[in-house]
Amino acid sequence: MGPFVRMCRLGEFEIVKGVIVVEKGVIVAVAGETDADYKEILKKCNRRTTLGERQVLMPGLVDGHAHAAQHAYCGNGLELPLLEWLETYTFKEEAKFQDLDYANAVYERAVSRHLRNGTTTCSYFATIHLAATLALVDICARLGQRAHVGKVSMDRNSPDFYIEQDTDRAIADVKTFVNTVEKEPKKASSSSGKGTTTTTTTTTTGNLVTPSLIPRFAPSCSAKLMRGLGDFRRGELPVHTHLSENEAECDFVGSLFPEADCYVDVYKRAGLLHAKSYFAHCCYCDLQERTLVSKSDAGVITCPTSNFMVGRALCDVRQWLDHGVKVGIGTDVAGGYSTSMFNAIRHVVVASSLVAAQKNDPTKRISWKEALFLATAGSASCLHLKTGAFMKGNFFDALIVDLDAPDSAYDVYPTTQDDTLDWLFEKFIWNGDDRNILHVYVNGIRVAGAAKTKNPNKLGGLAVGAAILTTTVALFTLTILRRRA
Amino acid sequence: MGPFVRMCRLGEFEIVKGVIVVEKGVIVAVAGETDADYKEILKKCNRRTTLGERQVLMPGLVDGHAHAAQHAYCGNGLELPLLEWLETYTFKEEAKFQDLDYANAVYERAVSRHLRNGTTTCSYFATIHLAATLALVDICARLGQRAHVGKVSMDRNSPDFYIEQDTDRAIADVKTFVNTVEKEPKKASSSSGKGTTTTTTTTTTGNLVTPSLIPRFAPSCSAKLMRGLGDFRRGELPVHTHLSENEAECDFVGSLFPEADCYVDVYKRAGLLHAKSYFAHCCYCDLQERTLVSKSDAGVITCPTSNFMVGRALCDVRQWLDHGVKVGIGTDVAGGYSTSMFNAIRHVVVASSLVAAQKNDPTKRISWKEALFLATAGSASCLHLKTGAFMKGNFFDALIVDLDAPDSAYDVYPTTQDDTLDWLFEKFIWNGDDRNILHVYVNGIRVAGAAKTKNPNKLGGLAVGAAILTTTVALFTLTILRRRA
Repeated sequence: MGPFVRMCRLGEFEIVKGVIVVEKGVIVAVAGETDADYKEILKKCNRRTTLGERQVLMPGLVDGHAHAAQHAYCGNGLELPLLEWLETYTFKEEAKFQDLDYANAVYERAVSRHLRNGTTTCSYFATIHLAATLALVDICARLGQRAHVGKVSMDRNSPDFYIEQDTDRAIADVKTFVNTVEKEPKKASSSSGKGTTTTTTTTTTGNLVTPSLIPRFAPSCSAKLMRGLGDFRRGELPVHTHLSENEAECDFVGSLFPEADCYVDVYKRAGLLHAKSYFAHCCYCDLQERTLVSKSDAGVITCPTSNFMVGRALCDVRQWLDHGVKVGIGTDVAGGYSTSMFNAIRHVVVASSLVAAQKNDPTKRISWKEALFLATAGSASCLHLKTGAFMKGNFFDALIVDLDAPDSAYDVYPTTQDDTLDWLFEKFIWNGDDRNILHVYVNGIRVAGAAKTKNPNKLGGLAVGAAILTTTVALFTLTILRRRA
Repeated sequence: MGPFVRMCRLGEFEIVKGVIVVEKGVIVAVAGETDADYKEILKKCNRRTTLGERQVLMPGLVDGHAHAAQHAYCGNGLELPLLEWLETYTFKEEAKFQDLDYANAVYERAVSRHLRNGTTTCSYFATIHLAATLALVDICARLGQRAHVGKVSMDRNSPDFYIEQDTDRAIADVKTFVNTVEKEPKKASSSSGKGTTTTTTTTTTGNLVTPSLIPRFAPSCSAKLMRGLGDFRRGELPVHTHLSENEAECDFVGSLFPEADCYVDVYKRAGLLHAKSYFAHCCYCDLQERTLVSKSDAGVITCPTSNFMVGRALCDVRQWLDHGVKVGIGTDVAGGYSTSMFNAIRHVVVASSLVAAQKNDPTKRISWKEALFLATAGSASCLHLKTGAFMKGNFFDALIVDLDAPDSAYDVYPTTQDDTLDWLFEKFIWNGDDRNILHVYVNGIRVAGAAKTKNPNKLGGLAVGAAILTTTVALFTLTILRRRA
């Protein structure tokens, strides 16, 4: 029994009282109290956990685009537009990841911070460094975050201190990276962060970390490099890159690849445009470009915060959706200043409102409920991962949110309405933060959260007993706990 | 000795090591370590307080436009544009303030929340209700927040349940409100919020709360009502209202007042445009309108968050500044979803970046340092209050910010640079929150803050002793403490 957030299609949003049954980290049944099979399903649950009053279970957030290696200057140096920003800050910072100790220190904090903000899956850019990128994979696995991780490929238009001079070697390094990650699959692990002993489990939920191919963006990649990546197990591996973020960038791409019909055609010609590709930003794509993306079944990751800052553009998300394209949301740290997907969700609404005003078309507006869907199931579909919604067969990646946390950043007023949870949940979306996120689960295992519990891997360790006595509105069942106990 | 934030002019920003001397809540001397009079001033300080490492003193924030009566639905119901939003949510909510108990409950939380977010001065809209508005004045005084408070005046185009039917009575109520507030001046008081005994002090810093005149906005006021307000002690009292927030609103004003040359001319004709007037929003003002505002020396309060949501517009702040107009910043709760001025500061940068992109003019961009100035000294100049900057003669309204608070929403990395504090302060501006605000001072008295101190009115009760032993980088002196002790 709920309350949990049910959003299985764009536009659907419901806080349902019901039950979610989990086995070995995977959802095996979901039912609302009013569903016909509810009582049947409930019988199967031999170990239950009940949420406290004003607590809600929601799908974990899926950040479709973030730079783990830019975490250290999150919120710094945002006064410059994209290309100048890269030259002045980004390349210098990313070059430091040659030093494995530095890489480990930053990546540990980055992954911890994203998790703490409720991001159960994150698609990370690393840097050009093979060893450091493998370290990021290890850290995601150890801290228990589902992730796409890619070694960045870039062999031109970059400073001497941060470039891959040898294109063949660059391609070989990517193959080594992918093979290494696949050979040593990273299983779900249980950890609540530093200081906690890590226990690797033997769930059958597959790899936590999927390797991706990352040509940084067309301006910093030769055609040969992109072709090398595109030819490597074409269509099998996720391709994660940038597209059409900033006007100067688009002009630069036009001058570098005069033979291409448009920006995305550069990737298409290299074999990098297919159903497992997803592109961050996509602010200036015209009809031809949108059609190419749509036909290939690639995804779009909108990153409004960094678009406001370094991109200085707006993405017309509705236009992409109307074109039948999968859309997810990214924080784009550190072009975006915040690791919080809630911040990104708010800014998707803001950006779309401004698009609506500019185009004098109110249908352009994306509601917060739609944005929440894009930030969970939307991103998950771009990443081809079974997460982001409470559906049978999906991983149990979830957040227990206390809508009335004592140290919350917003005030809660008594209401007498039945829609109290909806009302509070909306308040939480606009003003809540990590203080409201009591527990973060990936694969049914608690990996982070604000709740102070001595037994971090046991669900609802805080006040569940009391909650069972005082309320029956909220209940869901994790049979994995029984099996692990 | 510093570090404190020195911003006395737009464009100036410096974290200075120095000393600030405070007597009876007023700054009597300010000097940086390298200033000629530094040692002389330091001698005068017979009681000093030292900041901890990575702590900075900054001016308290001045929220130029917030609706205290909309606090309860902060973060709710933002899917509608302005005029529909008013009809659907706002008027119904504000009507509840007829009930004094309800008003007290909401206002107490609203003022506490604004204070906790570092807003030492707030310019509040209340409602049409005299008694409830007087209650808001009392609460500001009791909780120790400097404020402008106004009873809202509105006598047309409003629902039957929330309108002033009798215009003469409406004007009389405003006069009663102003006279009552002025007759019983609210002095600085010491309190850390609910549960704490209030001690009214006898400082000579004048009233904490200034009454303002608030014609809601031209569409909901008859010409007679506005004229009545304009004729009441013309030019002496602050006039606080809305101007040009939304296109539909501007069209409506045009149809209601065909005799006026433009929207602001409606206020001018009523005697409501003068040096003590300040207008929230000002998104669609043309050259004629900007010239009228500029000539009158009135102020503009930009409210980007609510402009993103219900206004669906962008304010060209640079255009106002270039026109020589005073500009401040407001949260515009609850059209804006956040009570935090840090959120508003970020959104001023965002909005200006989008204006810069739209107009293809990078000079339109407002930097975060400029936005911080507007959020402190800028708003203060619109409100004609001696606050918002550490200058001799100003009230000591200030925040002690821990840039590296243990529960901070961002990560701090070791740096070896001299500019560590600047770097961290920037990070704090973009990602910090109330957890970083250890102490909030108004008139030299601690009134709020995240630090758990048993002696909330004593400056720096947390770890000051230790800090003195371990660092000398940070020091400022509050002689008021000696006098109050």
